[in-house]
Amino acid sequence: MGPETSSTVQHPETLQWSGTIDGHVVLIEQTLLPEREQEVEIANPAEMIDAIVRLAVRGAPALGVAGAYAVCLATRKLTDLDEVRGRLASEMPKIRDARPTAVNLATMVDRMQRVIDASTAATGTALREELLAEAQKIHQEDRDLCRAIGEAGAPLIEDGETVLTHCNAGALATGGSGTALSVIFHAWAAGRRFRVIADETRPLLQGARLTAWELARVGIPVTVICDNAAAHLFSQGEIQRVITGADRIAANGDAANKIGTYGVAVLAARHEVPFFIAAPSTTFDFQTPRGSEIPIEERAGEEVWGAVSDAPPPAGIEFRNPAFDVTPRELIAGWITEAGVLQPPFEAIRP
Amino acid sequence: MGPETSSTVQHPETLQWSGTIDGHVVLIEQTLLPEREQEVEIANPAEMIDAIVRLAVRGAPALGVAGAYAVCLATRKLTDLDEVRGRLASEMPKIRDARPTAVNLATMVDRMQRVIDASTAATGTALREELLAEAQKIHQEDRDLCRAIGEAGAPLIEDGETVLTHCNAGALATGGSGTALSVIFHAWAAGRRFRVIADETRPLLQGARLTAWELARVGIPVTVICDNAAAHLFSQGEIQRVITGADRIAANGDAANKIGTYGVAVLAARHEVPFFIAAPSTTFDFQTPRGSEIPIEERAGEEVWGAVSDAPPPAGIEFRNPAFDVTPRELIAGWITEAGVLQPPFEAIRP
Repeated sequence: MGPETSSTVQHPETLQWSGTIDGHVVLIEQTLLPEREQEVEIANPAEMIDAIVRLAVRGAPALGVAGAYAVCLATRKLTDLDEVRGRLASEMPKIRDARPTAVNLATMVDRMQRVIDASTAATGTALREELLAEAQKIHQEDRDLCRAIGEAGAPLIEDGETVLTHCNAGALATGGSGTALSVIFHAWAAGRRFRVIADETRPLLQGARLTAWELARVGIPVTVICDNAAAHLFSQGEIQRVITGADRIAANGDAANKIGTYGVAVLAARHEVPFFIAAPSTTFDFQTPRGSEIPIEERAGEEVWGAVSDAPPPAGIEFRNPAFDVTPRELIAGWITEAGVLQPPFEAIRP
Repeated sequence: MGPETSSTVQHPETLQWSGTIDGHVVLIEQTLLPEREQEVEIANPAEMIDAIVRLAVRGAPALGVAGAYAVCLATRKLTDLDEVRGRLASEMPKIRDARPTAVNLATMVDRMQRVIDASTAATGTALREELLAEAQKIHQEDRDLCRAIGEAGAPLIEDGETVLTHCNAGALATGGSGTALSVIFHAWAAGRRFRVIADETRPLLQGARLTAWELARVGIPVTVICDNAAAHLFSQGEIQRVITGADRIAANGDAANKIGTYGVAVLAARHEVPFFIAAPSTTFDFQTPRGSEIPIEERAGEEVWGAVSDAPPPAGIEFRNPAFDVTPRELIAGWITEAGVLQPPFEAIRP
């Protein structure tokens, strides 16, 4: 085995800025994958918020980049400074609140706000140039973070083992090569040979639709299972490692991620399989002391019932559809970040 | 609270024999529920095997009754004794093997075989009368078992609590009022008021489609969740009890049930929520010492991928689709049977 290199496999580009300050964002329309690989143009914040809410773009790091670009889109074609500042003041809170659980969206909108607050630009156009430069810097930083996470985590994966992942923490979830999948991509590029099990991840099936697609397109062996089959495979000794992403990590290490992650972590602990979280330092929310204080988004019951029927459910049936859960720190073997595989109190990345 | 009575709520009739020895079976076509309540006529063993394989009829106790009736259908309109015996010898092994995990199917076909072996009938018609009488006895016994299970388990459910169940262990899964749901029906009929959470139960969604329908139609509050959301609800203290059915219980108490049951049991244990199995003594397989020896049916990957798309999956994606898992005895608080809530070694029902 040679040393880890920064080489990785070819991954899709979730979102890109196209053009100058009056340009637009081009997104992979994730709701159509894997049947169709289609890009959509996003020209204003309302379209971006809609794309975020309907999960055309999702994944905590990608949401941070999308939020920063949405700020740029808010002032498209404006030149007057007061007009630009006014529009930003009215649009940025809406962008920031498009989804509540992932910290990156709020963090990156706040970072754009600091550019505005510090700016001495004399014209609207000049301020807009500063904002686009900041958004592109956020995007490039995310690419760099993904690569560093992949390099840090890749040595964990051993030849011949089977790695389970939940939801999609891939290139599609970030501005770069992913978080959990970046680890997998880098291990594969380094020559390790292994299998991946992708939980389908109900209700929206990001594992079956997105993770399996990302892995299969580069030739990494991937097996899709229903979420509830993971327990049986653990009991049969068929899983040697778990790596997932995270949407927000509290200061103590508790990690919020896609609904079902906590259940996987409990099973991994019972079967003495190491469970890792892969996430950039931007996913850590040191203002939130523990996971119980992370808000959990509840989504519509239609997402659950949609798998059963296009007709409405029989009268009297209710639904719960929490989008995330919290995995407590004691179930996590390591936090794979751009600064290495860390343990609490995360001194290497704590501000 | 008054004493438990044998009263229960009105439940659907999964399958019924219609007519004389040349009659047929009428099944509720469960694959169409809850959108359509449609009955189908089953006139020969091949149709019954097809109904079993495609899960138009499912649930371990119902499979036992269905198997017994399928034996009766094998000789429909035959009168010659040798011809009847010959047809039975060729058809019964196929019926017995239609699904491998539930012991009831094999057990009841074997019980029909013992009638054949012991019979002194002089004509084919007389032997066929004996077989139909035995099948109807098996069906009536199942009704009685369901009622007795409901009466035995109902006192476990307390006012105001939330009970989680997985898959469908209801009237639709038995010849009577169900196993896990019979407990719920009897507790409700006895005046207890509580809520039920139904895991949707991927891939075939028996919880969302069947359990929710059975409960909602009699006014019992039911909330459907994706299987992977149970962990979050346990962590929030929202579940006080788990009751599921079983497809086969080994002599030591290990219980095979629908895929995902084991994961629920692990979560229940972590959160100190009691986990009960409800099943008649016919589900116990005292010939099988422990759960690891119960065969686990693997079904086609199309059942998993079907939720994603009608198009075939991208090249390179594989599937695993185990239909059952095994919950070890140490995670089970009690085995609710017609003979009471038992503990190993199950002396009350051990042959």
